[in-house]
Amino acid sequence: MNRFEPNLRIPGPTALPPTVREAGARQMINHRGPEFAAMLGRILGRMKPYFGTTSDVAMLSCAGSGGLEAAVVNTLSPGDRVLGVSIGSFGDRIAKIAQVYGADVTKLSIEWGQAADPSELRAHLEANPGYRAVLLTHNETSTAVMNPIAELAAAIRSVQPEALIIVDSVSGLGAVPFQMDAWGVDVVVTGSQKAWMAAPGLAMVAASERAWAAMETATMPRFYLDLRKHRDAHALGQTPWTPAIAVVFQVDAGLELMEREGAEAIFARHETCAAATRAGLTALGFELFGDPAHYSRTVTAARVPAGFDWKAINAAVKGEGVVLAGGQGPLAGQIFRLGHLGSVTLGEILDAIGVLEQVSIRFERQVEPGAGIAAAQSAALDRMGIRPAAAATAATAGAGA
Amino acid sequence: MNRFEPNLRIPGPTALPPTVREAGARQMINHRGPEFAAMLGRILGRMKPYFGTTSDVAMLSCAGSGGLEAAVVNTLSPGDRVLGVSIGSFGDRIAKIAQVYGADVTKLSIEWGQAADPSELRAHLEANPGYRAVLLTHNETSTAVMNPIAELAAAIRSVQPEALIIVDSVSGLGAVPFQMDAWGVDVVVTGSQKAWMAAPGLAMVAASERAWAAMETATMPRFYLDLRKHRDAHALGQTPWTPAIAVVFQVDAGLELMEREGAEAIFARHETCAAATRAGLTALGFELFGDPAHYSRTVTAARVPAGFDWKAINAAVKGEGVVLAGGQGPLAGQIFRLGHLGSVTLGEILDAIGVLEQVSIRFERQVEPGAGIAAAQSAALDRMGIRPAAAATAATAGAGA
Repeated sequence: MNRFEPNLRIPGPTALPPTVREAGARQMINHRGPEFAAMLGRILGRMKPYFGTTSDVAMLSCAGSGGLEAAVVNTLSPGDRVLGVSIGSFGDRIAKIAQVYGADVTKLSIEWGQAADPSELRAHLEANPGYRAVLLTHNETSTAVMNPIAELAAAIRSVQPEALIIVDSVSGLGAVPFQMDAWGVDVVVTGSQKAWMAAPGLAMVAASERAWAAMETATMPRFYLDLRKHRDAHALGQTPWTPAIAVVFQVDAGLELMEREGAEAIFARHETCAAATRAGLTALGFELFGDPAHYSRTVTAARVPAGFDWKAINAAVKGEGVVLAGGQGPLAGQIFRLGHLGSVTLGEILDAIGVLEQVSIRFERQVEPGAGIAAAQSAALDRMGIRPAAAATAATAGAGA
Repeated sequence: MNRFEPNLRIPGPTALPPTVREAGARQMINHRGPEFAAMLGRILGRMKPYFGTTSDVAMLSCAGSGGLEAAVVNTLSPGDRVLGVSIGSFGDRIAKIAQVYGADVTKLSIEWGQAADPSELRAHLEANPGYRAVLLTHNETSTAVMNPIAELAAAIRSVQPEALIIVDSVSGLGAVPFQMDAWGVDVVVTGSQKAWMAAPGLAMVAASERAWAAMETATMPRFYLDLRKHRDAHALGQTPWTPAIAVVFQVDAGLELMEREGAEAIFARHETCAAATRAGLTALGFELFGDPAHYSRTVTAARVPAGFDWKAINAAVKGEGVVLAGGQGPLAGQIFRLGHLGSVTLGEILDAIGVLEQVSIRFERQVEPGAGIAAAQSAALDRMGIRPAAAATAATAGAGA
């Protein structure tokens, strides 16, 4: 089947809405002028509620990984004892960054597919006092697992209240609720190409009062990623270095759409698409990967069925215009991932599940035509509170009894 | 006068040609797929001749300043003796980066407006042996002066042949000839928003065989800006972290235009626009800033006339739709700068000079209507070899004699 635009179902970059695409085509402006200043102020003001903070947010021109590096090198010093809680490849990455810059890193590596357990973390911290920082991943893109950050942060605060809590929420923030201030989180990182519906190229980093204070004495070297330089420039409506202006235009346009939709509706849309994806894949006989209690709401992973070659399945799926992501590291060839964040709609999920259904049947797996998309639709409608008349009547009758 | 698009005459970001703007509006793609790989290969292949190298080039998602940091931290170790030859604010910046990362930096600060002198550099190096690296600025955007890199590199090579020569050509490369391999330069940095006619967000860094070898033992910490990680990923058609895809699309589109125009024509266009700018400003009574022997060919600076307020002049010029840049640091309020790089055309220069002429007359400076633009046109045509008939006849007569 031919189609005119692929259904990009990787967990970022996410597909750009039309107004965001148009923003990418704008003519350049002077990044030291009033137009840029107004845009920067609007972006930071609109993003802060998604971080759940009243503290300063910095906008850096780099990938999410650059944002992770900024989070580490601005707040820590060589020799600092750091606990890297890793549930996948991005947890490994931020721990590696701390190591490269001379931190004394202890890794708490959780089996891929599992979330970090607050009780286990508490026990580890009780047995190992004196961490300067704990590194956490909110949404682990490599395993499609979402950590319970509020509970993990509470565990850390109860045992080692002085430790800085640094959270990678590159692929979580903006798609699901986050309350940095209320949860006592110190640094949070996100990236433009995820929930924000823009191209990659910008990382946003929020820091608590404690974290901003820590930067005054932290001695890891930094220049390009210096957060205080960004904060000071932002106060003048600028960035310390020439920003990725086209991406700034796009993030501004994406936030305009988010403003109109509203945070609650955005979060609900992500939950609906996640529920539909899980139900659809399950109905097609795919075994979901990861702990069901901690499935991500922005990406879903499923095991490649025994006896099937991921590359062959992926080629067929791609041939029908749906772009999925494979597994990373030890999970390469073992799982595939379907992203549902940013501009995702239920229709796109139904399309993707429909193509997987079609390809499953072509590969002679036991699948009834329509089973996958019907299950996806059913789960989505249930999540939206839209239930069949009979059930509604029964519910009404029950309510009247 | 109303106009529908400003004439952006700052020295970067430069105005985007239509096809580059359209490229910025493209839908996202999988950056781990074959389409991205083909594009990355095309970009690096087309850029290498502008660097004048056959060695590997890395494409980083960051501003030019991030590229400068990459050049330093990948090749040097804390304690290394480094000579920072500075002719302006960008020369100060790269020296500062080396300091922040623990290099033992000696600054050779040249008076702003002057280029570095090869003989003086040679004398300094003879008196001060043992530098691990020398940091040079090719085109100093803050003063509109272009260093004679070939001569400076030769001086370094003759006295301290082992020193690494690291060159910031963020605002030079692609607009003027550069021969990294032939000149013996080790690292060269450029940025997407200058000659490449794209939005900011990408820095390209080329390294010589010597520089790539130096990275094996250099111990300054780096992760996001690690050049070897980029080289290794590029070999697979990828980047180590999610790239600024929209800007990659734009650089690809810009290089397509450059391919059609040809390097020689691009260099000639820049020389023509530079000559027109200088002649026009001079005819308007502005005193050009800097050493005439080393005027930049991508940006021109002129002194704000005595008794005039730059902000007032700039507001009037901006009101007519021309966007200039002021002075930086100690030159704030003292000079203004007019950029002529990237997509610049002679018509845009005539327009800018025309507006400066108009504003000069409104500010009651002694200027004859048409004097500035006529001088600019005359200088441009002379540079293009287009001379009035009388002169052509005389030349023909002379040739026939």
